[in-house]
Amino acid sequence: MSNDTSKLDITTGPLPGSEKVFFGSDTMDDVTVAMRCIHLEGGEQPVVTYDTSGPYSDPNATIDINVGLPKLRRQWILDRGDVVEYEGRDVKPEDNGLLKEDDQPGVEPFVRGDLKPLRSKDGSAVTQLAYARRGMVTPEMEYVAIRENEGRKEAYLRDGEPFGAEIPDVCTGEFVRSEIARGRAVLVSNVNHPELEPMIIGRNFLTKINANIGNSAVTSSVAEEVDKMVWATRWGADTVMDLSTGTDIHNIREWIIRNSPVPIGTVPIYQALEKCRGIAEDLTWEIFRDTLIEQAEQGVSYWTIHAGLLLEHVPLTVNRVTGIVSRGGSIMAKWCLHYHKQNFLWDHFDDICDIAKQYDVAISLGDGLRPGSIADANDEAQFAELRALGVLQKKCMTHDVQCFIEGPGHVPMHKIKENMDLQLEVCDEAPFYTLGPLVTDIAAGHDHLASAIGAAMIGWYGCAMLCYVTPKEHLGLPNRDDVKEGVMAYKVAAHAADLAKGHPGARLRDDAMSKARFEFRWRDQFHLALDSEKSLEFHDETLPAEGAKIA
Amino acid sequence: MSNDTSKLDITTGPLPGSEKVFFGSDTMDDVTVAMRCIHLEGGEQPVVTYDTSGPYSDPNATIDINVGLPKLRRQWILDRGDVVEYEGRDVKPEDNGLLKEDDQPGVEPFVRGDLKPLRSKDGSAVTQLAYARRGMVTPEMEYVAIRENEGRKEAYLRDGEPFGAEIPDVCTGEFVRSEIARGRAVLVSNVNHPELEPMIIGRNFLTKINANIGNSAVTSSVAEEVDKMVWATRWGADTVMDLSTGTDIHNIREWIIRNSPVPIGTVPIYQALEKCRGIAEDLTWEIFRDTLIEQAEQGVSYWTIHAGLLLEHVPLTVNRVTGIVSRGGSIMAKWCLHYHKQNFLWDHFDDICDIAKQYDVAISLGDGLRPGSIADANDEAQFAELRALGVLQKKCMTHDVQCFIEGPGHVPMHKIKENMDLQLEVCDEAPFYTLGPLVTDIAAGHDHLASAIGAAMIGWYGCAMLCYVTPKEHLGLPNRDDVKEGVMAYKVAAHAADLAKGHPGARLRDDAMSKARFEFRWRDQFHLALDSEKSLEFHDETLPAEGAKIA
Repeated sequence: MSNDTSKLDITTGPLPGSEKVFFGSDTMDDVTVAMRCIHLEGGEQPVVTYDTSGPYSDPNATIDINVGLPKLRRQWILDRGDVVEYEGRDVKPEDNGLLKEDDQPGVEPFVRGDLKPLRSKDGSAVTQLAYARRGMVTPEMEYVAIRENEGRKEAYLRDGEPFGAEIPDVCTGEFVRSEIARGRAVLVSNVNHPELEPMIIGRNFLTKINANIGNSAVTSSVAEEVDKMVWATRWGADTVMDLSTGTDIHNIREWIIRNSPVPIGTVPIYQALEKCRGIAEDLTWEIFRDTLIEQAEQGVSYWTIHAGLLLEHVPLTVNRVTGIVSRGGSIMAKWCLHYHKQNFLWDHFDDICDIAKQYDVAISLGDGLRPGSIADANDEAQFAELRALGVLQKKCMTHDVQCFIEGPGHVPMHKIKENMDLQLEVCDEAPFYTLGPLVTDIAAGHDHLASAIGAAMIGWYGCAMLCYVTPKEHLGLPNRDDVKEGVMAYKVAAHAADLAKGHPGARLRDDAMSKARFEFRWRDQFHLALDSEKSLEFHDETLPAEGAKIA
Repeated sequence: MSNDTSKLDITTGPLPGSEKVFFGSDTMDDVTVAMRCIHLEGGEQPVVTYDTSGPYSDPNATIDINVGLPKLRRQWILDRGDVVEYEGRDVKPEDNGLLKEDDQPGVEPFVRGDLKPLRSKDGSAVTQLAYARRGMVTPEMEYVAIRENEGRKEAYLRDGEPFGAEIPDVCTGEFVRSEIARGRAVLVSNVNHPELEPMIIGRNFLTKINANIGNSAVTSSVAEEVDKMVWATRWGADTVMDLSTGTDIHNIREWIIRNSPVPIGTVPIYQALEKCRGIAEDLTWEIFRDTLIEQAEQGVSYWTIHAGLLLEHVPLTVNRVTGIVSRGGSIMAKWCLHYHKQNFLWDHFDDICDIAKQYDVAISLGDGLRPGSIADANDEAQFAELRALGVLQKKCMTHDVQCFIEGPGHVPMHKIKENMDLQLEVCDEAPFYTLGPLVTDIAAGHDHLASAIGAAMIGWYGCAMLCYVTPKEHLGLPNRDDVKEGVMAYKVAAHAADLAKGHPGARLRDDAMSKARFEFRWRDQFHLALDSEKSLEFHDETLPAEGAKIA
């Protein structure tokens, strides 16, 4: 693994045909939202779209990953007067997987300079949920509202079947606040990740997508990991989960967070298990708690916590075709069975919330019993756990901790809606966040596609965020191309969901594209396409002449 | 364009881990159905699956494309005693697009030897529909029944939401007959394509997919075209449409049909227009009629006929974002407007049926007004034409001509079911055959994926055959890789539809795959995957060791 960051080849520069534009707030001077403006030919109005790529696509921004991104939210956080800087936990060798005395780190730490961790001044909740319930519209909420409108001042069009979603014509800070207060939306934004551009997850907003990245001793380096994040957000990832394992994960995570314009999620049990040399039985609440604090101080904005997998659920999986396929689920089931004790994450859930609320880390309630095959979809194990997640969701609300709920997995089309409907019912409409679902088990090599079918449908039915699947799913580790294919598949699925729900702005870009198509404005078609680079490349393969683009 | 067929690199050999197996009939000695048997490790039962690849994947078959495939159906056809060999129409220079005196063919004709065209002895219908209505179970119907069962003697599982489909536990020749007689299924099988392995299109059978191929002066040759057909069927195309234009199309079509194990469809107006040097106004019924006979004698098994686009429909398109995007639709609209006369295909529909029934060419009623954008989906133009197609469907039935109905196009998810339901209603459940639909307009470069979402859904709702879209849609001409990507996307969509409908055999392969996954039988996973080659390739990219496959 290399630490020569000068050689980092980070992807920068504007997307084809596009300009970075900034929208201010009518009510808050210090809120300015970056968006992407696609300029069109033939006197057509430009199209403004949501932009997850951060400063990397801004030619006027100076990018230095040794420094990190500008701290957009720092002042907003300090101005609220409810957090305090503190020394923070000492980084331990085991945080980086250095378990033997002579183990050496492969990746130098990111130099934080004088940036110390923040946390709640008095132990009370410094969460967007706490603020929302108190009636505060925070700068983050205002930012999100402007961002969701994509430059619109009114509805472009209302045409869809929302299945109970209530998306307003135009999003306001007050609407964002009310949705967060209601527990129906989550603004993931750890106070220790001031670099992130605020975004929101909820059924009454644009459907979001997540991309997973993660180092691996076999194939990856810190340079690749940081660029995978930049690359994934360039093409539209709204959040990134860092699922790294092995050595250097603390340091790699720091490099990623300091350079990420999107919230970073993790599965803390993965790191806790590393600290136990991979032995699930050695996991303790103390190790897990320490890992949570470690990650909260770094700026992780959401944690997958498999607290709803209960001891009594495990026997429900014995007749499954694929048992327990969630890695976190397997770890916790192993622990529960070994001690024949209740899941310590369930028992300590109040303690987890107590940490989360002091940093505003959102909890993504993990579905450790998600079905790994069509055969196991919607079975009692899965739904028993979902009901337990509903209990935990209410607990989060009592602690003013933001939360959302993870979902499957492998589900045939006719069983998808049942998942969504039950989740809405038992989790009080807290945001649903699903992996696909894959609508068949036999699509290996094309699982991004098989899962995009399920993702589009569950997005339509009300799922708020779709976790991508790459073409390498079930087969190997995704490379840069796979990450892009996965992101693209999920941008298509999420956008198709927004169209079908009747999001009041969704069809604007489709209509601009179709008009460009009808008028043979080729360059506009490339620029309006979700994949502006591949569409140009494919066109040029058969018709490379410049004239063919103008004609 | 090259005619050196000795250099043709046709893809042959079995699919990985698979053996060509043959299933006989209990009632007909001369019916033997080829299928694919996937052998598994660990003492697991082999999995028998539908096989569209024909003799090319049989290591015991001798492949010589100069000779063509064995004439599987020839004796069945002759045994019915209702067809006669005749000299057939003389091939004219314009059939191959040779319009100037000194134009030379680029492709030599396929040497038919003593194979003369067949047609009805006395002008009566020699269609599977006519036989079905008379109570005959033909060898073709028996073949189809065995094929649909994939080696099953009983239902594997019943679990789905069929939306009114009535798929039996086990398919019989009598069930096939009854569905054809009812007009709810089509067994496309021109008497002049005896090489084809009978297949059926209908909502109560496995969902089928079509792949389009076509030569192009710019990029392709006869060698490539024949191999594209072989390649597409190797990966699962149930039918292939030859959309060639320009020179040599008669000769190329003959090469394709003589070597095709699947039915070939065309859009005859494309060739008729070539004969008119591309001038729509010069089209006449006589030229079109002559083209139908030319293609019927060659063995085309279905024609897309845009007879339902009526003069009075054209004004309904003026406010559309993308007007008329169907090529056939544009041609006919231009003709109608120029003469301000009714579509001559509508006026001559009885005459078309009269030709079709003498060769058993099925009519695929074209949707010339299909929406080319989300904005135009389900509009009055589209649905007015669909209702006209319902009128023509009934006409086909009175002539004993098999028919099915083409559908869109670009449709957002929430408007897909309305398409399916209206089609079932106005076309008496005649099979629906849709292009996608694409669920967004902005997925250029990934339109195979955007359309597979819509295809899976409409397949679930009852669509019988899904016309593939490749990643090059809207951008350029598909190459070999694009054809495979398109076929794979549609195999995933069709299979997902079968699972959701609750097809009684669909989940068998998924369950075998999931069991192999749970038991880390890697080789079995590759062999059971729809894309057995890519899944192995992806796996080996990160974990190339042989041990990793066995572990």
